[in-house]
Amino acid sequence: MLAIVLGVSLAAALEAAEPERPATPAQSLLPVPLHVESDGGALPIDRGFTTAWTGADDPRVAAALQRSVARLEKRLGHPLPAPRRAAQARLVVEAASAGLPVQSVSEDESYRLVVTPREARLTAATPLGIVHGLATFEQLVVSEGGRAVVTAVKIEDRPRFAWRGLLLDPCRRWEPVEVITRTLDAMAAVKLNVLHWHLSEDQGFRIESKRWPRLQEMGSEGHYYTQDQVRSVVAYARERGIRVVPEFDTPGHSTSWLVGYPELGAFPGPFELVREWGIFDNVLDPTRDRLYEFLDAFFGEMAGLFPDEYVHIGGDEVMPRQWNASLPVLDFMYQHRLRDARDLQAYYNRRINEVLARHGKKMMGWDEVLHPDLPRSILVQSWRGPEGLAQAARQGCDTILSDGYYLDHMLPAAQHYGVDPLPAGRNLSPEESRHVLGGEACMWGEFVTPENIDARLWPRAAAVAERLWSPAEVKDVDDLYRRLEIQDRRLTDLGLTQVTSYTPRLQRLVGAHPVEPLQRLADLVHPVRFYRRGHMRSYTTATPLDRLVDVARPDSAPARAFRRAVDRLLLQPPAQRSDVEVRATLTAWRDNHAVLDPILADSPQVAEARTLSRDLQELGSLGLRCLDGLAAGQAMAPERQAEEERLLDAAERARAEVEFWIIPSLRKLVLATARQAELKTTSVEEWNAALDAVVTRLEAQKLARER
Amino acid sequence: MLAIVLGVSLAAALEAAEPERPATPAQSLLPVPLHVESDGGALPIDRGFTTAWTGADDPRVAAALQRSVARLEKRLGHPLPAPRRAAQARLVVEAASAGLPVQSVSEDESYRLVVTPREARLTAATPLGIVHGLATFEQLVVSEGGRAVVTAVKIEDRPRFAWRGLLLDPCRRWEPVEVITRTLDAMAAVKLNVLHWHLSEDQGFRIESKRWPRLQEMGSEGHYYTQDQVRSVVAYARERGIRVVPEFDTPGHSTSWLVGYPELGAFPGPFELVREWGIFDNVLDPTRDRLYEFLDAFFGEMAGLFPDEYVHIGGDEVMPRQWNASLPVLDFMYQHRLRDARDLQAYYNRRINEVLARHGKKMMGWDEVLHPDLPRSILVQSWRGPEGLAQAARQGCDTILSDGYYLDHMLPAAQHYGVDPLPAGRNLSPEESRHVLGGEACMWGEFVTPENIDARLWPRAAAVAERLWSPAEVKDVDDLYRRLEIQDRRLTDLGLTQVTSYTPRLQRLVGAHPVEPLQRLADLVHPVRFYRRGHMRSYTTATPLDRLVDVARPDSAPARAFRRAVDRLLLQPPAQRSDVEVRATLTAWRDNHAVLDPILADSPQVAEARTLSRDLQELGSLGLRCLDGLAAGQAMAPERQAEEERLLDAAERARAEVEFWIIPSLRKLVLATARQAELKTTSVEEWNAALDAVVTRLEAQKLARER
Repeated sequence: MLAIVLGVSLAAALEAAEPERPATPAQSLLPVPLHVESDGGALPIDRGFTTAWTGADDPRVAAALQRSVARLEKRLGHPLPAPRRAAQARLVVEAASAGLPVQSVSEDESYRLVVTPREARLTAATPLGIVHGLATFEQLVVSEGGRAVVTAVKIEDRPRFAWRGLLLDPCRRWEPVEVITRTLDAMAAVKLNVLHWHLSEDQGFRIESKRWPRLQEMGSEGHYYTQDQVRSVVAYARERGIRVVPEFDTPGHSTSWLVGYPELGAFPGPFELVREWGIFDNVLDPTRDRLYEFLDAFFGEMAGLFPDEYVHIGGDEVMPRQWNASLPVLDFMYQHRLRDARDLQAYYNRRINEVLARHGKKMMGWDEVLHPDLPRSILVQSWRGPEGLAQAARQGCDTILSDGYYLDHMLPAAQHYGVDPLPAGRNLSPEESRHVLGGEACMWGEFVTPENIDARLWPRAAAVAERLWSPAEVKDVDDLYRRLEIQDRRLTDLGLTQVTSYTPRLQRLVGAHPVEPLQRLADLVHPVRFYRRGHMRSYTTATPLDRLVDVARPDSAPARAFRRAVDRLLLQPPAQRSDVEVRATLTAWRDNHAVLDPILADSPQVAEARTLSRDLQELGSLGLRCLDGLAAGQAMAPERQAEEERLLDAAERARAEVEFWIIPSLRKLVLATARQAELKTTSVEEWNAALDAVVTRLEAQKLARER
Repeated sequence: MLAIVLGVSLAAALEAAEPERPATPAQSLLPVPLHVESDGGALPIDRGFTTAWTGADDPRVAAALQRSVARLEKRLGHPLPAPRRAAQARLVVEAASAGLPVQSVSEDESYRLVVTPREARLTAATPLGIVHGLATFEQLVVSEGGRAVVTAVKIEDRPRFAWRGLLLDPCRRWEPVEVITRTLDAMAAVKLNVLHWHLSEDQGFRIESKRWPRLQEMGSEGHYYTQDQVRSVVAYARERGIRVVPEFDTPGHSTSWLVGYPELGAFPGPFELVREWGIFDNVLDPTRDRLYEFLDAFFGEMAGLFPDEYVHIGGDEVMPRQWNASLPVLDFMYQHRLRDARDLQAYYNRRINEVLARHGKKMMGWDEVLHPDLPRSILVQSWRGPEGLAQAARQGCDTILSDGYYLDHMLPAAQHYGVDPLPAGRNLSPEESRHVLGGEACMWGEFVTPENIDARLWPRAAAVAERLWSPAEVKDVDDLYRRLEIQDRRLTDLGLTQVTSYTPRLQRLVGAHPVEPLQRLADLVHPVRFYRRGHMRSYTTATPLDRLVDVARPDSAPARAFRRAVDRLLLQPPAQRSDVEVRATLTAWRDNHAVLDPILADSPQVAEARTLSRDLQELGSLGLRCLDGLAAGQAMAPERQAEEERLLDAAERARAEVEFWIIPSLRKLVLATARQAELKTTSVEEWNAALDAVVTRLEAQKLARER
């Protein structure tokens, strides 16, 4: 795998050249292993393909092998010999030792996989390496001349970071257990190893407590995980090499606790579950001992359910309003020499840390928990910027990065891929760097449902998975997108729905009308980014998520293809240009509106997209005018250029909570048409690069405005 | 008046050196006139002091003279001869022509005032100049050896900007007519000439409509101005050379319209008056003709009440959510080729502009109304940054500045004073600059009541008044503060309450306890700035404003005095230093807590300030440690310095919604003590300047964080 070093920007998501070179299976692994050698040859997988495990006794090894074999059987369409305990077989897996009783963040995850045309051997220090190695093995299986084979390879692999997580938030919108388990399947496929399970929020308390049953009885509207379900999820995750870290968000984001137990609050209540999105004032009262008694019992109960050494206590976005308005709280602060809400929160964190320590747990929190008064044993999750991470590391706390990995921000995969927890040039000592354990992709739940969550998570979470597993030098965005497409198909085989649900969900928007015209539009737009969606319409927990924006995707292969086609066109010498490909695309865009508009006018859920469709028509026409100007070698007049750019500016504006992907490519066409004369004195490559520089700068400015 | 050119910063509010040089009455005018000559001598005002008006016939001239005479009588304690129409008297005022039937923004406001030891003569082109000249005349009256005199002067004066406004917002919190009229008195005293009357908001509709009576009946909770009251305010303002521009905020900020007339909204309703602060979703539906019919009748009625040529239609902070969620609105937008909410608002503005034009009015709006589709005749009020102002001017629209003049941001007078609508270096052509008509101070109403509004407006609004009236070169902050203190006394004579209410309102917070200890603390803190207050506690229209933060002031003379005392101390050669003055102040601070704390503990409304009081004790001790170190010539150790700075950082944090003014001076003392050795190689002046540079940079960073 040749890693091309690129400064990754948003533009990279579109610039990606997705090369036509045929890639071998060994070049299509995701995440890219530390070391791969491949000299050709392949091991056939036929009806006689035997598998065996040997080495240390850990039931996870055999189970992992059995799952792999079952998946192979499904792919091949015929049965395979059942795996057995043996030292010889076509595929032998061997863990040198059993894993820890509770998977630890420091546990060895490395593996070695050698496949020859005769046999395959996977060895690892622990069952975790076996799980990861089998995921690699499965990615190497391809069809070759009508039969299944595994490419011959020699792989040495281990993760760059030990903590590679994904946060799920079933609080704001409910996600049943099936969603959690299929997400665990997908995580295992890309070697993510921590499920961060966000279990309490203003909008809902999502886990059964037998000690304090009013938590779920009054705080969940019936949507919560039973303790049996939790145990099964934890076991399911363990089988797949995944730790489960529960988060109970306190002392803010805590309305759902207070509905059933108002006496824990800094305000008298009564409290109602929150149904909107945002940051709310309700907050626990950290000045009363009864809170710590309550939490001691609660965390004791939870410690029995979640074996992981970490418990996440939230700590983000604590609003000081109720504390500042409470005389007893203010008096307590005076007595304890706490100056403000930040000090009071630090006091709370110290006490919670003691509670957790009594139950054998380490405390983890969002970066607001960082405070000089807290012990070094806490783990800080940085979400507000990279400074939080560095600050925690400098203070000697372990830390993980989530800033830049918020999948709910609807950024393209390339954007997340470019975020490194330890980028070159980060000013940390080796000792400090060791505190940076890894990162977590976060999928906050405002705009996801069981129906669309796969498409919001995947394949982008795989880009984060690779960033956290593979060497830092692996950062070729073109190649990432090539492999994400393959990964999407692998995940579809696992039962994930992001690929298969796309067209049917669009179809639903237009009822009995043909779906293709809408799909042509939907392919070219993405949901608005960061937190802009909430500014455009009012949402509650009950708002249906069944509009174009809910189907539109944060990456666009057709837009990337168009960008490449424009590049190819402009990189040809003017005399030899062929614009057939670009012209065909633009013509299809221009002519789509005539077909789509009557459909939209007849489809209330998607009628809001009518001006977008009309703009696509205008954008197509604009592009065709450029092609004509380029073909005629006739530079566009400055007034005409200004007019075209006004149209592009207008078309760039968000509507129906989506935006076009294709404006930058069209900007480039306009610029190219206006600046043809430069080709007399410069090479096409330099000229093309100059055009790209303008377009990329405008894109970066737009993104900065949105943030 | 020697204007010292200073880069005005927040620090200037504290650095001000308030010189001890005795200033003459001619040097104490506010705003500073264009041209003043004063050679000594004075005109006595005794029982025989006659006054007369002559020239053009405009009742405002005689009325203004009568008001001045009445105020002189009150000051002197004896009657004066009644003014009469005549060409000769000790004071003669003469307007060359009657004013326009409706005061116009382009009307001549200049005047010439000549006072000799024998007589005074005030001449002006219009009655407006007479009103302004009399305000100047009154400022020149002083007691001299037990008798009243007017300093002999020759003044030529006219305003730099034609539009010098003050916005009052009686919507969020009600302000009765008495508040409006006494504010008009104060405005006239500093030559402000526009009352911008913000009359409708989400929280209330504050004017009687006979055509649409449900506006005030259902939208005001009984707090609205009757039409008779409005007419009397308009007349009262006209007498004082002040135009009244009403604002009816649409299409956002419009909940109070919708309570009585839900059919005007983009959502079906029903609607309730808003009781919180913020930006809300309710919005008028600009797609229906019935809205324009309604507004046509409404503005027709209002045109009869407000003679001014401008009507302000708001246009700020329009939330697109309800428009984006309405199928009929989206359909209308498609049909009218409007891409998004911004286009729809521009459509609305165009139609409203037509409605206003039918009633002979010009439209004015907040800077969001700027749109290429709107006619040049609209006036744009810039509030989101200086860019809006420049953009409007470049597009050929008249414009005024309010960004930087928000008095509710609780910034010191020096900060507003440093904001110039046309600063040197602003890249505008002379033609474009002419579109910059002036500015308006804004007092948004969230945190003001009839009780504290004077103290929130004055004297700071006078600093804005001077910026808009006086030459740009007049910008000596020291001198401004000196004259603001004098102006405060003048305004107190006019019946304004900012000076007289301070101690009694503090007294109320501590009941029967002595007030001095609390006042010592209150003198040294200011309310938190910008919009931070709303983040610290929850407020509604009904929350009482009766806490320390509501009495604390945005400027602090004691803090300025302390800063000067520290400067004087450090500018002395080390061998000759006398720290008596600084030591006395610090000792008083240190010892205040022992007295104040029991009072605070016994006073629930102000108990929240206990940690502040304790911090003042610690700050006093810190300062005394520095003095001891300076006296001993002993440099503070780095660890000690770090510790002192940690204490300063902690004490700097906001509590009870207030912050200390004195941290920068104490920082300087710490730095001075730590960096004494530098005095061996540098002059005290250079050393002092180096310390100031550090402190000023930290202050600027803090302010930037708060914004």
